[in-house]
Amino acid sequence: MTSAAGIPSAGRAKLADVAAMAGVSVGTASKALNGGGRMRPETRQRVLDAVEALGFRPNQHAQSLHTGRSWTVGLMTTDGIGRFSTPVLLGAEDALGAGKISVLLCDTRGDAIREQHHLRNLMDRRVDGIIVTGRRTDPRPPLTGIESVPIVYALSPSTDPADTSVVSDDQGGAHLAVDHLLATGRTRIAHVTGPEHHAAARDRARHTIEHLERSSLPLATGRVHFGEWSEAWGRRAADAVLRTAPDTDAFFCGNDQIARGVTDTLRERGVSVPGDIAVVGYDNWDTMALASRPPLTTIDMNLAEIGRIAALRLLEAIDAEPAPGLHTVPCRLVVRESS
Amino acid sequence: MTSAAGIPSAGRAKLADVAAMAGVSVGTASKALNGGGRMRPETRQRVLDAVEALGFRPNQHAQSLHTGRSWTVGLMTTDGIGRFSTPVLLGAEDALGAGKISVLLCDTRGDAIREQHHLRNLMDRRVDGIIVTGRRTDPRPPLTGIESVPIVYALSPSTDPADTSVVSDDQGGAHLAVDHLLATGRTRIAHVTGPEHHAAARDRARHTIEHLERSSLPLATGRVHFGEWSEAWGRRAADAVLRTAPDTDAFFCGNDQIARGVTDTLRERGVSVPGDIAVVGYDNWDTMALASRPPLTTIDMNLAEIGRIAALRLLEAIDAEPAPGLHTVPCRLVVRESS
Repeated sequence: MTSAAGIPSAGRAKLADVAAMAGVSVGTASKALNGGGRMRPETRQRVLDAVEALGFRPNQHAQSLHTGRSWTVGLMTTDGIGRFSTPVLLGAEDALGAGKISVLLCDTRGDAIREQHHLRNLMDRRVDGIIVTGRRTDPRPPLTGIESVPIVYALSPSTDPADTSVVSDDQGGAHLAVDHLLATGRTRIAHVTGPEHHAAARDRARHTIEHLERSSLPLATGRVHFGEWSEAWGRRAADAVLRTAPDTDAFFCGNDQIARGVTDTLRERGVSVPGDIAVVGYDNWDTMALASRPPLTTIDMNLAEIGRIAALRLLEAIDAEPAPGLHTVPCRLVVRESS
Repeated sequence: MTSAAGIPSAGRAKLADVAAMAGVSVGTASKALNGGGRMRPETRQRVLDAVEALGFRPNQHAQSLHTGRSWTVGLMTTDGIGRFSTPVLLGAEDALGAGKISVLLCDTRGDAIREQHHLRNLMDRRVDGIIVTGRRTDPRPPLTGIESVPIVYALSPSTDPADTSVVSDDQGGAHLAVDHLLATGRTRIAHVTGPEHHAAARDRARHTIEHLERSSLPLATGRVHFGEWSEAWGRRAADAVLRTAPDTDAFFCGNDQIARGVTDTLRERGVSVPGDIAVVGYDNWDTMALASRPPLTTIDMNLAEIGRIAALRLLEAIDAEPAPGLHTVPCRLVVRESS
């Protein structure tokens, strides 16, 4: 694309234009740009000056054929892009996009055929690596049919321990919540959480029980209240807990929706939060945590950090320094008015 | 990459392997694949048989140099990927990804420097087109510095009417809500919404007033209650409305969070919803609409459809059939128990 005056317009100059202006062959101009080949420094400088003058930018596709790298990473979400995968995705995009790596988005929606279609496409495009993320913390089977492309699993770890997975520290999260409640004088702690077949519910419950046992404390109702990740379940469970153990002085809930349901029931029964009973949630989902009355103390999984670290691990693996195994990212406690 | 037996492994065969097996030159094999050049049908068939036998897949970068198309589209979100941009993004990815087009994700977070960085990157990668989406319905200035790459704006329209923008039909949404309330016998309708400086709040309010006027009805309180997009504002506004106009028989709210706050206040004041007062929200955000007591009747903007149509308009523009101007996507009414 050349303007009327014969000067190529900025950003669309071709390598041939650069070579012509520098008075060298296209091959020499190419070598000067890629840092390869032997040439006099003055020659290389003339090429670089021409690049500057013409606003030349190399064609990435041509470059990729030279370097064997596409500077592209696939970001595959396995079950829709939702509240959990979005921050992971943004964290990864942040770490990758700051450089010259672009992110190819693939949403497989848990459909094996879509996953294969996207994988084929990513292979055809010669991506340098793939980040796989999902909505749940349950381990997932590794991607199959991938040859020699580094993969990092974020949030949902691979079932293969030889793969690289970056996950949230559910144990640390449960400990933060329990320690906070103990430190504020609570000893009769109930645990209300999601479905038992979800790893997030099961793991947090187990770590809660084990950590309380270190202080020789049982759960207030003697058991975990597994149910759903919903406000409605939180409301029902709060009633059940108070019926079984009226002296309960704290609820640790598996997510913020449950915690919000619990606070609604407590308020409607005239129980003061945190005066009579403290409530701690999980997720730090601002919409829930801030709209709750009172606003919720909760555990933040640092999802964006999980995405960022997954991206950094992937970049290392692309540079032939893989770090296989499970990497955990610590949670943090966010204290608000409910505890 | 060739296995011990000298048979290239599936998916990594080179064009040279295909040519060797078909007994033709690499140039002929390339022409056979790209559909160009003249050759005997038997020759072309031999090449295609070799492709099949070797599981050969063409290198996209080499292909792009041939066709001048990268089969890649940039998806740029201007203010984070959130509740509104995610469905738009998924709708677009769905429409594009079903074919062989890949989506390059760029999140600019409203930062002009990040936007320029991403744009340069997209240009360097020779994307075939760009979809720009945002969180708000307010018009945004067009992207600058783009040469001859089609752009479609989704949800947040461009301020330039010559650009192609796909937006939600806020007028139709307001009409659906008002018509539903009138049809169920309500005549004293209050309108509580977000900040007046947001187009979504302003536009829905204007269309609500104009549509009520057609039935010779004023707003119950004589004015629009502008405030915040929050439950807390909904709770406060419900009190204010009932103080000013105790005979109010319906609330039409600018979003589901406000509507949920309104229903909470009504329930806590012993007002029956929908027995005494009907409540209609906006967004059909399931977390809010379903957790509300009772679950909310609301307006769904069909955000995924906005993304899908933006992608289809972009594909047409890439095929040199642009459709400039503002395209609106109809809303739909979702009736639940609050009305």
